Amino acid sequence: MKLHVIPASPNSQGPIAVAKHLKLDANNTVEIVNSYGKTRTPEFLAINPCHTCPTLELDGSDGAIWESCAIMRFLCVNNEGGDSIYPTDPILRGKIDMVMDWRQTGLYPSFPNIAYGVFGYPTDEAEAKKAFGKIMNELFPTLMDVYLKDTQFVYSDKPTIADLSIAPVLTFLKCRKNFWAVVPDKVKEYHARVLEAFPDAKEYFDMTDGMCTGFEGPGADIEP
Amino acid sequence: MKLHVIPASPNSQGPIAVAKHLKLDANNTVEIVNSYGKTRTPEFLAINPCHTCPTLELDGSDGAIWESCAIMRFLCVNNEGGDSIYPTDPILRGKIDMVMDWRQTGLYPSFPNIAYGVFGYPTDEAEAKKAFGKIMNELFPTLMDVYLKDTQFVYSDKPTIADLSIAPVLTFLKCRKNFWAVVPDKVKEYHARVLEAFPDAKEYFDMTDGMCTGFEGPGADIEP
Repeated sequence: MKLHVIPASPNSQGPIAVAKHLKLDANNTVEIVNSYGKTRTPEFLAINPCHTCPTLELDGSDGAIWESCAIMRFLCVNNEGGDSIYPTDPILRGKIDMVMDWRQTGLYPSFPNIAYGVFGYPTDEAEAKKAFGKIMNELFPTLMDVYLKDTQFVYSDKPTIADLSIAPVLTFLKCRKNFWAVVPDKVKEYHARVLEAFPDAKEYFDMTDGMCTGFEGPGADIEP
Repeated sequence: MKLHVIPASPNSQGPIAVAKHLKLDANNTVEIVNSYGKTRTPEFLAINPCHTCPTLELDGSDGAIWESCAIMRFLCVNNEGGDSIYPTDPILRGKIDMVMDWRQTGLYPSFPNIAYGVFGYPTDEAEAKKAFGKIMNELFPTLMDVYLKDTQFVYSDKPTIADLSIAPVLTFLKCRKNFWAVVPDKVKEYHARVLEAFPDAKEYFDMTDGMCTGFEGPGADIEP
């Protein structure tokens, strides 16, 4: 299979970390392919008409799977060791699925106006501040006081794909240095803990960190 | 277990339809509870601090699972017959998971400005038109030409929880009668086909249909 990615995109980094954690690239099950700038080519559109990355191109005539959480689930369910990061205990799995949906419906939609400047897209500063207010007042309390209430990772003492859906996205906040400065220590420690748990993906995580930390474009210095 | 729902909300109707399809209410595994207007009470917040419906309150001290897609997965994986609407074939399941994520990240975010007037929330008409443009030009083509390209339901000739994540939401378009009028027949037929496949939830689907068809509030008559 081929995992098409945009290396610096947090959406791609969860699936990359899973593929590396399960040694799927080392054992030639999954080839990680940099498809940055190629997602609108006829070749890519034939694989994924929605032209999104990450995309997992399956073997033979099986088509493809896109959407980062769906890819992480698929890699874990169908490969040895996957249950270590996507536990089979029914209630824990249910809660991991819940948090991954919260990531899609609650967390991620707050980030484009804050962070897409690093990819050269225009952002709305007023909307960025409003989104950061929601992150601080609503999303971080849910993350810290509900999902991480009793555990080091989301509902678990070991990292799972729920953590991989969340932590790489948090790096985005570093592109607004005054936003990052007020992020609670508990969140910063969680962010570091998750990324450190997947050292094989460090080069990818570092790429986003470098882009965000070094960002000097419009709005880099705005106050929260 | 108790499934807390807002009966007229499409987000609640997928889990309701699953519970009824698997006879979980008939056999007393799941009690469906109308929690409309109660999600900010101390009792509800103790179950789900995110105060969202649907919420599946688990037995004993197991906590709760919220987010509609996570609940549908949980009910299917842990109850007899669930694999009939959440197939275990790895590739098909991967694609169903993908479509459910697309529903969360792509489809649903286009609906609040179009439809939340039926719940008494203010909506932005310009944003509603813009969202409907995205639905017609981007989301419906993906639904029709990719997910329903060769099959009557999403990637399948039998209905699944991916269809239950999508079809009840489409009813929302009826609150803007001139929007619904231009919805492609293929989408309307799919919408009807899915709802008809889950007759035990008809009273719930009809509630939303009635609210939307009868809506006469601000913007009910705007052109697409």
